[in-house]
Amino acid sequence: MKKTLKIDELIAHSRDIKSLSLNEVQSKQIIAQYGIPVVQEIVVTNETQAAYAAGKVGFPVVLKGLGSKLTHKTEMGIVKVNLQSKEQVCKAFEHVKTACGTAWEGCLIQPMVTGRREFVAGLIQDSQFGPVVMFGLGGIFAEALNDVVFRIAPINEKQALQMMDDLITHKLLGDFRGESGVDKTQMANVLVGLSKLGMDHPDIKEVDINPLIISEDGKVTAVDGLVILNENPAKACKIDINQETALKQLNTDLQTMMYPESIAVIGVPRTPLGPYPGIYRCMRDYGYAGRLYPINPQTKDIDGVKSYPSLKALPEAVDLVILSITANRVPDALEECIATGCKNIHIFTSGFAEAGEKEGIRLQKEIKAIIKKGNLNVIGPNCMGIHVPASKTLTWKMASKISGPVAMISQSGGNAQDFAHLANTRFGLFFSKIISFGNAATMDSTDFLEYLASDKDTQIIAMYLEGVKDGRKLLDQVTRINPKKPVVILKGGLTESGARTVASHTGSLAGGEKIWKGFFKQSGAVPVESLDEMAQTIMALHHLPPVKGRGVAILGTGGGIGVAAADSCARTGLQMPPLTPEVMEKLREYIPPAGNMIKNPIDAHIVVMRLNLMGPTLQLLAAEPYLNMFILSLHLDWIYGMNEGEYVDTIGEYLAKEARQHLNGKPLVVAWRQYQPKPGINEARIRLEKILRKAKIPSYQGLDQALSALAKTADYHAFQKENNTV
Amino acid sequence: MKKTLKIDELIAHSRDIKSLSLNEVQSKQIIAQYGIPVVQEIVVTNETQAAYAAGKVGFPVVLKGLGSKLTHKTEMGIVKVNLQSKEQVCKAFEHVKTACGTAWEGCLIQPMVTGRREFVAGLIQDSQFGPVVMFGLGGIFAEALNDVVFRIAPINEKQALQMMDDLITHKLLGDFRGESGVDKTQMANVLVGLSKLGMDHPDIKEVDINPLIISEDGKVTAVDGLVILNENPAKACKIDINQETALKQLNTDLQTMMYPESIAVIGVPRTPLGPYPGIYRCMRDYGYAGRLYPINPQTKDIDGVKSYPSLKALPEAVDLVILSITANRVPDALEECIATGCKNIHIFTSGFAEAGEKEGIRLQKEIKAIIKKGNLNVIGPNCMGIHVPASKTLTWKMASKISGPVAMISQSGGNAQDFAHLANTRFGLFFSKIISFGNAATMDSTDFLEYLASDKDTQIIAMYLEGVKDGRKLLDQVTRINPKKPVVILKGGLTESGARTVASHTGSLAGGEKIWKGFFKQSGAVPVESLDEMAQTIMALHHLPPVKGRGVAILGTGGGIGVAAADSCARTGLQMPPLTPEVMEKLREYIPPAGNMIKNPIDAHIVVMRLNLMGPTLQLLAAEPYLNMFILSLHLDWIYGMNEGEYVDTIGEYLAKEARQHLNGKPLVVAWRQYQPKPGINEARIRLEKILRKAKIPSYQGLDQALSALAKTADYHAFQKENNTV
Repeated sequence: MKKTLKIDELIAHSRDIKSLSLNEVQSKQIIAQYGIPVVQEIVVTNETQAAYAAGKVGFPVVLKGLGSKLTHKTEMGIVKVNLQSKEQVCKAFEHVKTACGTAWEGCLIQPMVTGRREFVAGLIQDSQFGPVVMFGLGGIFAEALNDVVFRIAPINEKQALQMMDDLITHKLLGDFRGESGVDKTQMANVLVGLSKLGMDHPDIKEVDINPLIISEDGKVTAVDGLVILNENPAKACKIDINQETALKQLNTDLQTMMYPESIAVIGVPRTPLGPYPGIYRCMRDYGYAGRLYPINPQTKDIDGVKSYPSLKALPEAVDLVILSITANRVPDALEECIATGCKNIHIFTSGFAEAGEKEGIRLQKEIKAIIKKGNLNVIGPNCMGIHVPASKTLTWKMASKISGPVAMISQSGGNAQDFAHLANTRFGLFFSKIISFGNAATMDSTDFLEYLASDKDTQIIAMYLEGVKDGRKLLDQVTRINPKKPVVILKGGLTESGARTVASHTGSLAGGEKIWKGFFKQSGAVPVESLDEMAQTIMALHHLPPVKGRGVAILGTGGGIGVAAADSCARTGLQMPPLTPEVMEKLREYIPPAGNMIKNPIDAHIVVMRLNLMGPTLQLLAAEPYLNMFILSLHLDWIYGMNEGEYVDTIGEYLAKEARQHLNGKPLVVAWRQYQPKPGINEARIRLEKILRKAKIPSYQGLDQALSALAKTADYHAFQKENNTV
Repeated sequence: MKKTLKIDELIAHSRDIKSLSLNEVQSKQIIAQYGIPVVQEIVVTNETQAAYAAGKVGFPVVLKGLGSKLTHKTEMGIVKVNLQSKEQVCKAFEHVKTACGTAWEGCLIQPMVTGRREFVAGLIQDSQFGPVVMFGLGGIFAEALNDVVFRIAPINEKQALQMMDDLITHKLLGDFRGESGVDKTQMANVLVGLSKLGMDHPDIKEVDINPLIISEDGKVTAVDGLVILNENPAKACKIDINQETALKQLNTDLQTMMYPESIAVIGVPRTPLGPYPGIYRCMRDYGYAGRLYPINPQTKDIDGVKSYPSLKALPEAVDLVILSITANRVPDALEECIATGCKNIHIFTSGFAEAGEKEGIRLQKEIKAIIKKGNLNVIGPNCMGIHVPASKTLTWKMASKISGPVAMISQSGGNAQDFAHLANTRFGLFFSKIISFGNAATMDSTDFLEYLASDKDTQIIAMYLEGVKDGRKLLDQVTRINPKKPVVILKGGLTESGARTVASHTGSLAGGEKIWKGFFKQSGAVPVESLDEMAQTIMALHHLPPVKGRGVAILGTGGGIGVAAADSCARTGLQMPPLTPEVMEKLREYIPPAGNMIKNPIDAHIVVMRLNLMGPTLQLLAAEPYLNMFILSLHLDWIYGMNEGEYVDTIGEYLAKEARQHLNGKPLVVAWRQYQPKPGINEARIRLEKILRKAKIPSYQGLDQALSALAKTADYHAFQKENNTV
């Protein structure tokens, strides 16, 4: 048996012989140095050695072919198990050596490690997240089940334990059919070890430990291992988020861009070219109060305002330059920015890498070089840039002038605009900043996130992401920011065919769904699946006190709705606990049985009709420790029908003033149903929602939306509690 | 070895010894008679026999304890495997006999059946569906994975094969790591055999075949088996849907109830008691044209119309009696119906079994007896009864007077009303009949379904179900009706906690989610999860030509939306196939690259802006065999902004007239987005949707809804094609 080499020596040796995969012995030497328990083994090169080694190891033994090119040993028939005698070992040796051919470097003798439970663990280098640890079910079912979870390195023991819990087949890790539960500390060490290995050795592209066998006593052994190197030696992966000076400068520059005192727009047509009036006119019409310069060399004025032929002709170096010209003219314009000392640029223009066509990709490369040379701050290209109500900046047609606590970072300009409208008009949510950044040729989502983390006007951060350049940085930031400012993320392109479209849309790579799942688990970021869900969730996070559990009580009318609520609860992971007999008895004192069902949901028409019964009911329920939040379900068509809407307002005002005093600090939301789109009902609903919002009671269309928003809010607070961040 | 007994003898013997479970040998004798391949075995009662039997079977052997009370043999340590010699057999015999104690009836000697793949199959008696066949993954992962599927008996070979395909781990049934794929015919025979066994022997409550081992050559062997009997001997389960005479009579009676020439309402207050004016006034106000008699012994008139003290006082025996009195007065009223020859009754009254309280349950029993005695046709209690626009019958406040092709059967009165409003006003769908049937004390959903099957005014049937009394009958009906009239089912209470609420709501039992999944797979019924989805799906089924594949092309604007579409497609099971280079090239001839992405989705602003480009585009795409349907995605805020709405109408009219000619008979739907709830945009949208509906182009809010409705429609047509029903 050779002496154990250091990892760098093993890697160097592989590079010397131009092999990207290390053989089994070398691979296991590497993982063993990170504390991963590997099977005992002896390398032999002839039959005599084999027989002797087998005796030393103790029968039964396993004999395997060894060689850096032998990566699918079972399929090649070069793994012989359960060898009971020296004769069998010798026969196997001969057979295996022949089967390996020129790839043969020797044979391995190992004891038979038995265990009915097999897992796999591994490490991959992800293009967005760098080293990522994998853990999953192994053995013959691995492929059929695909039960694997990922975490982005580095991970700690707690996160490793969570990985085990996240497996669908996690029951196999407990006591199992007479075998002991797995030694979880030991298993966690394997995963943490892989994580460290990945962090320390960026040269390693992939590690595969398959199988990891759990013995009857719960101990873990790596029976096989494979290490694969990157084609090109890589530099060490360091988390260096403390480039304090650069960061401070970037934040200062971004602050200038968000509150520019002067803006030049290059590319302002004499008359609008279509229904979109162009950036200059949008900015002007929104009421931008700073100095706004239109640039167009072919005219002297734009709508009566003096126009300039170039940046050079301006009376000052502006705080922000916006490029709205064709892609092929962008490089020259950037050079002009450098020449005139304009540092901050938003490139609106599209036609770069996003289309996936040659010329665009070339142009994007070219502008990146210019940006780097000039040390410019550039948002875009192919994006809507910045909208800040407080600085009256806007690049699209219409937006509210009200400022609010929500910031949005969006890779899609369309989603930025749509979300702004949606959040404003339907959910009464307003914005501190909206940043649409498109192709992210230089500045990426993480740069804006860092800025918003310290922005005093921002309390909640919404992100629409397709790809991300530095996933590891994003993970670190979100983990840090999320406890104070909830980060809600809509990740586009999670599914495979989605990923294809992402590639064509922004030219960035989308990560696999399972790795992103790990990202959300690690960072505690709030995942949403649509812009609507994003707004609904932010409304709950913004208005509600912490949701301290998963028990929801639903009060309202309609049994069919109650049935649906129970189904929805089960799907979102909330619970609808049955009321205790004592509570039911107390409710029955003033709620008659006919037409009123006292369970959970409480289907009690009378409580909605007579508001003097609602206070005591809420108070009674709010005192129950197993009930953590409340939904009041209102059938608006019905309530409106009582007196042409007036009672809708009455309920709203009751909830806003009286009801809140009976909640024991627990969250309340309203879920309304409206099946008749009568103008009168619409108006009553809009009034109701306004009254409720002012009282910090979010309202939702239907129980599903309410339950989903509450579930996500409960998840958020549970994560914070579990991680002691609050 | 005893001679094989007939199944009836085996069951009788178990009844004689008062045992509900049969021992392993008896159990396997039963299943073997249904063609299920069982392991060879010999019963032995002493060591000498054991050793002899082992020799006869051939080493290695398995020795097990035998006894009808020994149902968890592995856990008891009374299964000894891989015995290699007579000595080991004798030792095992002694050990097992001792461990079994008084439950010991002998030992079993079996050959070792080896195979890495283990499955389970079984049979259970479900309270709603009767005998149900189960198939799933067995072995050590069975419990951890819970990968099992169900089908309602009887099943045929094709359905058995589908069960195998439905397993998450179905890959294990194919060629697998050097072992042959399972003999699917043999496995199907096991499942079909279980199905027959269940149909022939209702006395059998449960059959468990665990494990079913797949040998290396793919052959199937039942290595263990357990048969459990019902506590009380049951009658044979017969499907008897051909009670022609009774059926015809019921359909005739239902026709009378749907189109009554005279109605009496028992229980009409002098003045309305609240916002709900009561059934009499609803019926009158909706314009019921027949003879409508209010009954109230305490007054002489209702709103100026003559009132009657009782049914007896009426000038005729009415076609329909509606009871709107307290629950305790219902029995007397039913007796009066019998006395006066009124056969058809709707009991609106609640307070029966649905509340789960004693008195209500007693009352429901009482009225069931009266109904049976009088051979009455009763809808309810606890329901809204019948709404038929053509006969001007309505029991709630407001409804459209337009008739249409959709019928609804609803266990919840609230859902019936809500769905009617929703479908009318938001989706332009109208009804032939709506039947709200509540507790189904006598007439159940299946009775109404049978009626609607032959109702010439009904083309599509929507059902909201919580429980069903005769699931087998429902399955048979839906399977028969669905090819001609799509049956869309919203099943409440699928999840566990949902089921609890169902029990409290209608007093009926809800079936398990997995069994209902089997129901949908077998019947081809279209499953939906909410009333909205129900309306959206019906709109597609009603308007569209058959969807003949899963390839969808999306045309519209906004890359972020395209990314989301790809994700949604993947989730619904639709595909968004990439366009061929030839098609892309042709499109590029008139669609410039700047701002227009030619992939799938086609993000081409210009095609929406210049309608003369849309025809050729659709025509080009519609000729591609891999594209089976089209979604046009419209951003209404944007389009409205072009000229205050006029262009919205222009697009609508273009689609309604011109576009349809370019579709090659393939379905087109519109998905609109609107983020600004401006009145003008609302109005333009409503106009657009009307224009489109008239042209049989369904329109949806957002891509998700459109994709979901298209996916369900594609599923429907695929099922029909696969089952040669069309």
